[in-house]
Amino acid sequence: MNYKLTISYDGSRYDGWQRQGNTDNTIQGKLEAVFSSISGETVEIHGAGRTDAGVHAEAQTASLRLASSIPPGELMTRANGYLPEDIAITAAEEAPERFHARLNAKGKTYRYSIRMGSVPDVFRRKYQHRVEEPLDIEAMRKAASALCGRHDFKAFCSLKRYKKSTVRTVEGIDILLSGQNMDIYFRGEGFLYNMVRIMAGTLLEVGMGLKKPGDMADILSSLDRSKAGPTAPAKGLCLIKVEY
Amino acid sequence: MNYKLTISYDGSRYDGWQRQGNTDNTIQGKLEAVFSSISGETVEIHGAGRTDAGVHAEAQTASLRLASSIPPGELMTRANGYLPEDIAITAAEEAPERFHARLNAKGKTYRYSIRMGSVPDVFRRKYQHRVEEPLDIEAMRKAASALCGRHDFKAFCSLKRYKKSTVRTVEGIDILLSGQNMDIYFRGEGFLYNMVRIMAGTLLEVGMGLKKPGDMADILSSLDRSKAGPTAPAKGLCLIKVEY
Repeated sequence: MNYKLTISYDGSRYDGWQRQGNTDNTIQGKLEAVFSSISGETVEIHGAGRTDAGVHAEAQTASLRLASSIPPGELMTRANGYLPEDIAITAAEEAPERFHARLNAKGKTYRYSIRMGSVPDVFRRKYQHRVEEPLDIEAMRKAASALCGRHDFKAFCSLKRYKKSTVRTVEGIDILLSGQNMDIYFRGEGFLYNMVRIMAGTLLEVGMGLKKPGDMADILSSLDRSKAGPTAPAKGLCLIKVEY
Repeated sequence: MNYKLTISYDGSRYDGWQRQGNTDNTIQGKLEAVFSSISGETVEIHGAGRTDAGVHAEAQTASLRLASSIPPGELMTRANGYLPEDIAITAAEEAPERFHARLNAKGKTYRYSIRMGSVPDVFRRKYQHRVEEPLDIEAMRKAASALCGRHDFKAFCSLKRYKKSTVRTVEGIDILLSGQNMDIYFRGEGFLYNMVRIMAGTLLEVGMGLKKPGDMADILSSLDRSKAGPTAPAKGLCLIKVEY
């Protein structure tokens, strides 16, 4: 049976999603080990987004094919019994034979979370990047709007040699405030390596007055990584939703 | 100057609020060490609620008297610079000369948080008690209502020899549901040792069908700890508000 799984994880103590050979401490590796032991098969699990070390997911999507036909609900419950407490399967369903979580994904939403001011939120401290400088939200919203649309995002990509196209469409960037918490939602078909974190880091520089909303067009057209802001820390990033 | 402080902490790795001599790993101990080093004085800090090991606080209140007159905002910012990342001062103000956070407290609200079902919330796992059995919410609400009011709560107290009165007034118990999360709010003038956790443990037994709402009156009148339910785990409990 081919399965579509929805997975939630606190990425704090992992080396990211993607399996890494022998000394494996990845989400993919942990999941494959559990599904192997449940099914007795060698399994490969495909995640929609290959999140970096320290990045979280509220709803990563993954596909998994097993020779055995374990009912999806039973597979989920058994897997949750074996998984560490910072990884959980939150939904499981049978998927069409050809479904592949990464190749079929049509869109993704990431959230970048910031705690503003000098008072941390102790309960979200592992999921928020703290910024003590006052932020100009209106400037950030203008800059965010300049990043939306179809552009070559080479300046917002950490990989120097990228063989394929670096053109992407950012469908929307929404900045939500609640007290001292700022959540920036990025929606798009797909993102380049570190692209969301570099956009977040650049928007934060705009918020601090180090860059202006009008600089966004120049940064984009430069295709030069050094013109954009820093890569914001991994712990503020969370994969929220994958669309098909 | 006499100060009123509002304090938030993740109690997971602490031995509770109250200072314990030499091998100190308590919230009070950490705070006193920080305020001593800021002021150069020997300080004593009084918390409104002496939370147990593993119990959290969104808004504990404490009073602190210093010979020096550091402006409250400055004191807060300096303290937050020294405090570990799981303890934060969220507000500080000058208090009347005779203000004492515990003796003057008129009421407290605690929240007991439960995650229902087989799918954990990985981001709240340290702040929720997980219950996989289905819960009868209506029965829990009836039982909660039977616990409200002025009663002798000796059956809901862990201390066997309690010299003072064990009569307390529970002003309200509200059970809120959001998806698979259940939050039980307990409001009262004051609570006995472990009283909120024993009420939570008893309500959970009602939810599982092990006790009936009608049993609450008998448990109360028995004055017998062994008639009530178990003490629910510390990690689900959080001090939400102190009123004056």
